[in-house]
Amino acid sequence: MKKYCIGIDVGGTTVKIGLFEINGKLMEKWEIPTRREENGKYILNDIKQSVLEKITHSDIDISDVEGVGIGVPGSVTKDGTVLGCVNLGWGIFNLESEVKELFPNMTVKVGNDANVAALGELWQGSAKGYLDAVMVTLGTGVGGGIIIGGKIVTGATGGAGEIGHMPVNPNETEHCNCGKQGCLEQYVSATGIVRTAKILLRESDEKSALREYDIEKITAKDVFDCAKARDIIATMVVSEFGYYLGTAFAHVASVVNPEVFVIGGGVSKAGEIIIDAVEHYYRKLAFPACKNAEIILAGIGNDAGIYGAAALVAEND
Amino acid sequence: MKKYCIGIDVGGTTVKIGLFEINGKLMEKWEIPTRREENGKYILNDIKQSVLEKITHSDIDISDVEGVGIGVPGSVTKDGTVLGCVNLGWGIFNLESEVKELFPNMTVKVGNDANVAALGELWQGSAKGYLDAVMVTLGTGVGGGIIIGGKIVTGATGGAGEIGHMPVNPNETEHCNCGKQGCLEQYVSATGIVRTAKILLRESDEKSALREYDIEKITAKDVFDCAKARDIIATMVVSEFGYYLGTAFAHVASVVNPEVFVIGGGVSKAGEIIIDAVEHYYRKLAFPACKNAEIILAGIGNDAGIYGAAALVAEND
Repeated sequence: MKKYCIGIDVGGTTVKIGLFEINGKLMEKWEIPTRREENGKYILNDIKQSVLEKITHSDIDISDVEGVGIGVPGSVTKDGTVLGCVNLGWGIFNLESEVKELFPNMTVKVGNDANVAALGELWQGSAKGYLDAVMVTLGTGVGGGIIIGGKIVTGATGGAGEIGHMPVNPNETEHCNCGKQGCLEQYVSATGIVRTAKILLRESDEKSALREYDIEKITAKDVFDCAKARDIIATMVVSEFGYYLGTAFAHVASVVNPEVFVIGGGVSKAGEIIIDAVEHYYRKLAFPACKNAEIILAGIGNDAGIYGAAALVAEND
Repeated sequence: MKKYCIGIDVGGTTVKIGLFEINGKLMEKWEIPTRREENGKYILNDIKQSVLEKITHSDIDISDVEGVGIGVPGSVTKDGTVLGCVNLGWGIFNLESEVKELFPNMTVKVGNDANVAALGELWQGSAKGYLDAVMVTLGTGVGGGIIIGGKIVTGATGGAGEIGHMPVNPNETEHCNCGKQGCLEQYVSATGIVRTAKILLRESDEKSALREYDIEKITAKDVFDCAKARDIIATMVVSEFGYYLGTAFAHVASVVNPEVFVIGGGVSKAGEIIIDAVEHYYRKLAFPACKNAEIILAGIGNDAGIYGAAALVAEND
């Protein structure tokens, strides 16, 4: 292994880039805008230019860079094919081959962003030292990543770790973005938490601090803040959140029995209240042999993507 | 690799043993009784005697035997420790080490019987040629095995693949053998299918051929036979079976996105009616990227255990 590697997290608005020592130390990170125009055709070249420029202006020799890892917001199959990234304007193509052409003589690895973030938490985040981990990223949507024996599980068609689309409520009448009804994402994403709050506020006459907010502008953070202040409606919302995520974790445990569940994404900033809500149901619902899995908060926040992308290269064997 | 290997499937009543060519050809199989007395202390030695005797009376030289694989009815951790096998009278001990002492100079591998059966189907059964497969064994209980990249997923505490204990019905009031309520096993095991039939017969006035059976003696096979003859109540039972197993498969797909689901065990002898019932719900409930997984019947029946145990040795690398 050479001395350095690059980790890249491609999002719909910005591309985050990190220059790492191969042992996991982040030396420098920066961002460039994601140019989505013309089906995102400039994105990869923009990345190449930015990386080469950064290296040129550093005291690092490019021959000391082992390779480039990239996480993208879409399914990625084992051979490096992306099956479309709506947020980037990308269709189906072999991303790994294209990036290899831009960075000749380097190791190039690509993956789904949520899978890659899970690897990042395992490499240098709060799951460091574990081998079998499951991460769920709670943001506008819900992403997931499954790590077994230190390696990302990709699945037959890049769909492994799509925990957000587990069917957890057969009685749901509203549709998820994926077209199905009753997906986990409808209850535990930031959007889902707000949706539950609105439903409970509508269905109940109970006093609540949430009624003092502009109902159209309530955020998941508001809900957790009110629950921490012992608001009844907010507490019920958090409890429903915990029930669905705890149920999903019990399902996951029956399949891969991880050592640890890591909860990340914007919603996880609410802190320990999240863990308490999920543990309450998980410990009840999980198969006895799997009950004692750790449930922890993510440790490297928005940087999990670049760490994990770098780990694709640094941990490649 | 040497020329031969041994696959052993330890059950509560009999121990099945197979002598295999290392390429997967079953040369000979036989059974010995499982001596459960005195906490099953004679079982391993009985196995040793039987294997050595068979080899002595064959024209195989023991130095041509690569090793011994064993599947047991209980959780087995990565280091070969069994966490208790109620049906054998066994407590917690390192099975792999003990078997190694009985077969010195041989490769010894151990695993949970349902996990091992999954590997058997992948090695020489109906999932041959696949790398990512999930098998569910529907008998008195429900066993499961997860294979990724051709290898069994064991999990942190040997609990991976315990699909039978996924919580699929939050409204269940009866308890599963594991102590929880609403486990998959309560609906899709042979016992569970009969239970559903009894409930529906009790709750409905609908005419049914099942009412002509002694209600205490109805079997899962009776239910499937009646459903094939277009009996309404039996059809509803099969539909409920399909709903729960299809839901569980959708959960599993969100985690590991396998190429194929294999359904085995006594219940699977009902044939294609099983596949139709499960597919109907799976295709609706699974995440779009995972929808097209194959769902097939097991191919090597009761021999999956010995095949898989042999594969632990033959596919060891």
